[in-house]
Amino acid sequence: MVKLVLLRHGQSTANLANEYTGWSDSPLTAEGEQQAIKAGKLLDEEKIIFTDLHTSVLTRAIKTANIVLDCINQNSVPIKKTWRLNERHYGALRGLNKQWTVETYGKKEVALWRRSFTTVPPKMDKPDEDRRYSAYPKTILPLAESLKDASDRIIPYWLDSIAPNLIHQKNQIIVAHGSTLRALIKYIEGISDSAIDGVEVENAVPIVYELDSRLKIISKRELR
Amino acid sequence: MVKLVLLRHGQSTANLANEYTGWSDSPLTAEGEQQAIKAGKLLDEEKIIFTDLHTSVLTRAIKTANIVLDCINQNSVPIKKTWRLNERHYGALRGLNKQWTVETYGKKEVALWRRSFTTVPPKMDKPDEDRRYSAYPKTILPLAESLKDASDRIIPYWLDSIAPNLIHQKNQIIVAHGSTLRALIKYIEGISDSAIDGVEVENAVPIVYELDSRLKIISKRELR
Repeated sequence: MVKLVLLRHGQSTANLANEYTGWSDSPLTAEGEQQAIKAGKLLDEEKIIFTDLHTSVLTRAIKTANIVLDCINQNSVPIKKTWRLNERHYGALRGLNKQWTVETYGKKEVALWRRSFTTVPPKMDKPDEDRRYSAYPKTILPLAESLKDASDRIIPYWLDSIAPNLIHQKNQIIVAHGSTLRALIKYIEGISDSAIDGVEVENAVPIVYELDSRLKIISKRELR
Repeated sequence: MVKLVLLRHGQSTANLANEYTGWSDSPLTAEGEQQAIKAGKLLDEEKIIFTDLHTSVLTRAIKTANIVLDCINQNSVPIKKTWRLNERHYGALRGLNKQWTVETYGKKEVALWRRSFTTVPPKMDKPDEDRRYSAYPKTILPLAESLKDASDRIIPYWLDSIAPNLIHQKNQIIVAHGSTLRALIKYIEGISDSAIDGVEVENAVPIVYELDSRLKIISKRELR
């Protein structure tokens, strides 16, 4: 039996301002750091020894990861930082207030952008120019993503770099983002395209899966 | 021209107590965290973009590394954590007060243990039983190391995992330990076995090398 922990970062400044974030590098708030410490302490009680931590290249996830490893006294665990675990790319919605978009575009359209599996939000004019992504061809960098688009770049990383470790009975922890984790939960639990609509992932609440050697779920708990 | 930064961790509790540390996982003091922040701010002014950070599997180095990457706003830089960059293994001296060893064993003997290139301190009875090292055969885990012994495990990592990146013009930063960095400085600068005796590395003072494409030193500065 192996353990997989999923953890969304603590509150970011964009979360606090109720803004779309995506690939923007919104930092943790002081409250977000405290949430990460609380998550770390809850995880510490589980006494899970991890062999790998996987996170995105976005600061709010990396800092949450650093805090958690320190709380569980496992600083030496390797941290794999990959753009494939980045938050879903919110395109031209980035930086906009969510309530403002409801008032401007209507509740129904916004619900599609936020929660449907396939709806792509309005695109940016050009991909992110950030040194984090400079090693990649521009053609693979998104201008906006549906949850499906995000899933299409997240699941290859799961298959190549996380699932094989779990099959070899190595406990894994993923510290990432709301939509990243929704895509992973959809895949791991076999949730349908329509039912994923109702799945929410809270900031800094660790989700602990016990999996069998074929990665079938034995149990799932949220630590609070 | 490529840049290499060497940085010793901030003050640890063992540094504060004037104790031999080696592979003990002595944490940073509050002062040590402040020193790391200061080092990070000084480095930030240098505007060096790093492609890799290399550190040990010891908490004091990893936490210093995390703090520095945050200060220079480069959290997404990969951190490679390796036992090969661990502090020199101080054997049975671990945890002893340095002044006490001078009073007990004499100034001359202690000077040999601390500063000579080849003198091995008294050995432990058995290697460290820590999950960090559980993947390695016990035969490669030291019971005590001279600086030469430490160098013999550090330099292969330099040759395989750091030097090639520098040759490809990728700026590198190494956050490690006093003896680890003495071994690297000896190798990089071609210092003799006897002259290394006089080389000290302070906590949290970044050393910035500019190197040419054959890794010859163009300049060396300490940031204060």
